[in-house]
Order: sequence, then C-alpha cells, then structure tokens
Amino acid sequence: MFEFKLIASDGNARVGSFSTPHGEIPTPVFAPVGTQATVKSLTPKQLEEIGAILILANTYHLFLRPGDDRIARLGGLHQFMNWNKPILTDSGGFQVFSLAKINHIDEDGVTFKSHIDGSFQRLTPEKSIAIQENLGADIIMAFDQCPPPYDRELNERALERTHAWAERCLKAKTRPDQALFGIVQGGVFEDLRKKSAQFIASLNLPGNAIGGLSVGETKEEMFRVLELSDAILPKEKPRYLMGVGTPYDIVQGVARGIDIFDCVLPTRLARHTTALRTKDRLNLVNASYAEDPKPIDDTCECYTCQNFSRAYLRHLILAKEMLAATLLSIHNVYTLLKLTREIRQAILTKSFNTFLEEFQSP
Amino acid sequence: MFEFKLIASDGNARVGSFSTPHGEIPTPVFAPVGTQATVKSLTPKQLEEIGAILILANTYHLFLRPGDDRIARLGGLHQFMNWNKPILTDSGGFQVFSLAKINHIDEDGVTFKSHIDGSFQRLTPEKSIAIQENLGADIIMAFDQCPPPYDRELNERALERTHAWAERCLKAKTRPDQALFGIVQGGVFEDLRKKSAQFIASLNLPGNAIGGLSVGETKEEMFRVLELSDAILPKEKPRYLMGVGTPYDIVQGVARGIDIFDCVLPTRLARHTTALRTKDRLNLVNASYAEDPKPIDDTCECYTCQNFSRAYLRHLILAKEMLAATLLSIHNVYTLLKLTREIRQAILTKSFNTFLEEFQSP
Repeated sequence: MFEFKLIASDGNARVGSFSTPHGEIPTPVFAPVGTQATVKSLTPKQLEEIGAILILANTYHLFLRPGDDRIARLGGLHQFMNWNKPILTDSGGFQVFSLAKINHIDEDGVTFKSHIDGSFQRLTPEKSIAIQENLGADIIMAFDQCPPPYDRELNERALERTHAWAERCLKAKTRPDQALFGIVQGGVFEDLRKKSAQFIASLNLPGNAIGGLSVGETKEEMFRVLELSDAILPKEKPRYLMGVGTPYDIVQGVARGIDIFDCVLPTRLARHTTALRTKDRLNLVNASYAEDPKPIDDTCECYTCQNFSRAYLRHLILAKEMLAATLLSIHNVYTLLKLTREIRQAILTKSFNTFLEEFQSP
Repeated sequence: MFEFKLIASDGNARVGSFSTPHGEIPTPVFAPVGTQATVKSLTPKQLEEIGAILILANTYHLFLRPGDDRIARLGGLHQFMNWNKPILTDSGGFQVFSLAKINHIDEDGVTFKSHIDGSFQRLTPEKSIAIQENLGADIIMAFDQCPPPYDRELNERALERTHAWAERCLKAKTRPDQALFGIVQGGVFEDLRKKSAQFIASLNLPGNAIGGLSVGETKEEMFRVLELSDAILPKEKPRYLMGVGTPYDIVQGVARGIDIFDCVLPTRLARHTTALRTKDRLNLVNASYAEDPKPIDDTCECYTCQNFSRAYLRHLILAKEMLAATLLSIHNVYTLLKLTREIRQAILTKSFNTFLEEFQSP
C-alpha cells in the first residue's frame, strides 16, 4: 500500500503511479475539489466519465457540517459521497486561517468561530487527524499554519509550529490504510523553505506537499520555491502542490517535479460563466457568443463540447439555469484532466520540453 | 408521420404509440418540462438514462429569450438543446395568462408585458404558430385563452375565441413535419366542455389536448371533464392532459382515456428538497433523515436511489449544493416515467383495474 512507482522522467518532470486502498493514481494528476463531499454541480458518474481519479474533500467543512462522526457512522466519506476511487482530505489548516475568524492560536492548536453558525470550535493536530480518520480518505494531510507569504517573523514562528504539529500528526495517526503527507511551508523565504523541506523530508512520510503557494506571491517566487523543494524532497515519494491548478501552473509545476495538483478553479470558473481552455478563457456571457454555433473548444472531446454550442451555454447562463454550471464544470475539469494526460504522454515519450515550448507559444 | 397506433385497451385506459419525425412515443407517456430549453438541472444524457422520450418546452419563454428566430438560425430546438427525441411546445397561451401582465386582449390576440424586461410583446394565433415553426418541435399546440375555471361568462367568451384561434392556427401552419394539437377548454362547465370537445374533434387534428385543468378545480370536477372529453374526442387520436402530473392524477387520467401528461412537478419539487414517491413524498430537510442510510425508495432503480442515502441528500440540501437538485430531479422524473411504464404493462396484461386498486390502497 502507498507505493510510489516512478515510471519515467524527462528533466525534472516525472510520470509515476501511487497505489492507494482505492486504486492507483497515475501521476501527474489533477484532483478536482469536492469541498462539501461533492464536486460542485457534478455527479460522481459524470466525474468518472471525464476521467477523474483522485478527488479532494475539505476537513474543515465536513467537520462543521455534517460532522465527521456522522460521516463515519454512515460508512465513511467514500460511501457517503459515492466515490470509490482515491480521496485526499486536507487538514483544515488552510480553511481555518482563510475562512474562519480566529479566536486564539497557541502551540497546541487553533480556536476559531465556525463560518456556518458562529460557534467556537477547536482544531489541533490530534483533532485534525481524528477527523480525517473518521472521514477515511486514502491520503490525509498534516495540520499546518498558513501565514501570509511575506511576513518573515510570522513565517518563522509558524514554521516551528507546523513542524511540531507534523510530528504530532504522525504520532496521532492510527489507521494503516491512510497515507499521511507532510506540508512544506516558509512563505517566500528561501532559507525557511529549505529548512522546512529538509525537516518534512526527514519524517519519511509516504508523500510530501508544498503549501502556502499561489496566495499572492509572484510566479518567479513560486517557481523558485518549487525548484528548491524539488532538490531537497525525496524523488521516490510523490510531491503534491496544494491549491494550484491553472493550466500554466500545472505545466510549470510538473517541469519542477510536482506530481499532484488540486484546485477549485475549474468548477469555480464554471459557476462564474467562464470556460477554461489550455491557453485562454472564454467568458460566455459576452454578446459575441449569442449566435455562435461552435463548441467552447473544437478540439475537445468532452460531453459539453461534443453536444452544445457557445450560444446554448450563453442562453443557459442568461436564463440562470443550473445546467450552465454543470456543462461548464464538465468541460473545465475535463480540460485539466486531459492536460495532465497529455503531460504524462509527453514525459513517457521524452518530449516534455517540446510540449513545454508549444504550450508557451501564443 | 404522426400515426397513432392503438395497441391495447383495458376499460378506458389505452396503450398506444405515436410516430413523430424524432421517433415513436409509447403512450401513456409523461413528458418532463424543459421550460427554457433545459429540463432544470439535468443533462440530456441523464434524461435519456432515466428513460425520458417526449419532453416539453415553453414557447412563451423561448420567444422572449433567446428568441425563436435565433433558435431557428442555430438549427432549431432539437439541435439547440441537444434532444434528438420528440419535443412538444405549448402555444404560449397559458404563460401569457399566468406569468405576464396582460395589457390588452382582443379577438386578434394578446398584448402583454414581458416578465423579463417589461417590454410590450404581442402573441396572436399566427404568431404563436410562426414561433413554434421556428422552434421546430414535433408536436405544437393551438394558441388558446385560459380563463379562471369558475367564471361562466369569461369562459363562454374565451371559448369562442379559443375555437376561432384554433382554426386560425391550423390555417397558419405550414410545416408538414409538425403535428398541431387542438385544446379543449370550458372551465368546470360541462356544456362548455362538451361543446369545446365537439368543436376541437371536428378539426380532425392529429391529436387533441385538454387544457385549463389542475388550476383550482376539485378532483371530482377534473375527472368529470376528463370523462366527458373521453366520450367525445376520437379514440384513434392521442389525448394530452396539459400540465397535470402527480402520480395520482396520472393514474386517474389514464383511467379516463388520457395518453400524454406533462408537469413541472418532479423538477420543481426536487429544487424544493422534496422526493416524490408513488404514494407519498419525503421532505429531505427533515432532521429524521440526518443519519438515514436508506435510499429515497428502496424499490427504485434510479441512479440516485442506487447510490446515495437520504442522509447524503439532506447534507447536500443543507449545504446548498446544486447536486441536491440534480439527484432529486433524477429520482423524481424517473418515478413518473417508471409509473407510466408500469401502467402500460398493466393495460397490456388487462390488469389495469387491479393496478388501480393497489395504487389506491394505503
């Protein structure tokens, strides 16, 4: 269980396969996000049809509603949401620091106000693991603190805490059928990032994640952090770049040794009338699409592009029909899944550099 | 084209098949409603998977948005919404009288204010047919006036108008690949209903509809109107009961010679958290379902019942997730489609009376 087979590499880009209790995850992989135990507007059947394998769910949200204990009594998250392929849960850390009102943070954990009912709640490393064990995902994440990327002093203190919490998560963990991934933090500071990568690598976990990116730093800063992490994190373990998922960032992440990506982008854009393509986006509200009989992308094989015109999608959007979000989500998620399949193929045929050049050309 | 084969009957209940340019419609049939060229929250693929054949779209809505001329330029309604099976469009009459603010009504037609942008618009029998010819449905409806069911004087005047308009619709119609159905009106008044059924039957159209029911009258009044229509309307033509679609009304309608039903009920209930079963309804918001691992209906073969618990559906509802409406719509529409299939089987085996008795038992 949790074996990572490195199948091929081309430069720093890798093709692999990560085994989990719910099947193999071919990497590089993009994981659609099912925050509240549903990838918004898509059925599990639709997700399967567009080729999704790994999906992500949010510990913070499911802890607050419907409650991880309730999900455990209903057979765990896979059964609850009817997803029989691999699931990854985050630790709740990022959401506590971005969605909730923090009441108190100390070495032991975080007290915060629920964004749903205003009640006081507390998360600690041990509690995060207990929740994630109730949910029962294949991959679970260490509880971490996510400070703003440019505050040196805060990042120093948060890093110590994140490292201590990672050790406590590992100690608290009891289920052998879940892989705990550690998270490298350290903002934009190279020395902190190096220190963090070395520490997280030393825990010898089945996988390692890079957190705290795509939160306001420049692309150059993000790429530098990825490059130095790539040099330190063990090559024989999968690397997961958390919360990152534009086509550009996926390609650049793979070029820097990343295997796993997740992002709400494709489904969020879909709910905001925007179609994602590999090199651009279409905002389908635009009047120019009113009688456009073409699909979003005439090279795309997804259900939406095979069957519906831009004019129809625009009509659904203006008429405020739910089907708009569903059809756009199908296309947007498919686009990222197809991109990772193409990347795998390019690495397998040692043509990733050509792929990268073509991708960067206008 | 538009041949109605009467395959079997049992009492007044009938099994038939109506041929259209987009395939055979086995009757009795329930038509889900796709008001704005989409059956709300369902893809055409999902609709096909649950066994939908005939669907309905609303002339009033599509005339106002995106415009019937635009749909015509995009290849017609079948291509626009990607439904390659039969479609029925109503005439716009019912919506003009129920949704719009009427500005003026005379012998020639109706001027009204659009519910979308407040603009003045006009529908006449000729305009309704022109719109429906642009949309290109297989079955189109005569433009009618729908007065409140208990106003004798208004119903008398409206009936004259509805009959004159039916003749004008027939005269205006040019497309041979569309079947025009006439509509019997007359409120709850037996003499008006008889007169109307006789007149509409005399037009010798390929099908006949009964309108103005399920709008406030009692069940007994509705059944009486159905029985007297059944006695007058030609048996060799399909009969369509407009806008009616509870399980009870479908069964009682079939018992009185009805072949075609349509209703927004299953999808509207779905968006309001309610699951339809043949003999009752579940409001899945109820706390009693919070940890209920059972499906909505353990005898149901739909995708929702085969894969999701009441507890999960309730969670989606409380979390305001769009998937709730989709999964409930799948179940609710499936329930009515399955009911009509069971009714057909009962008639074919001459056991419709037993079916009716079992259906009426608690």
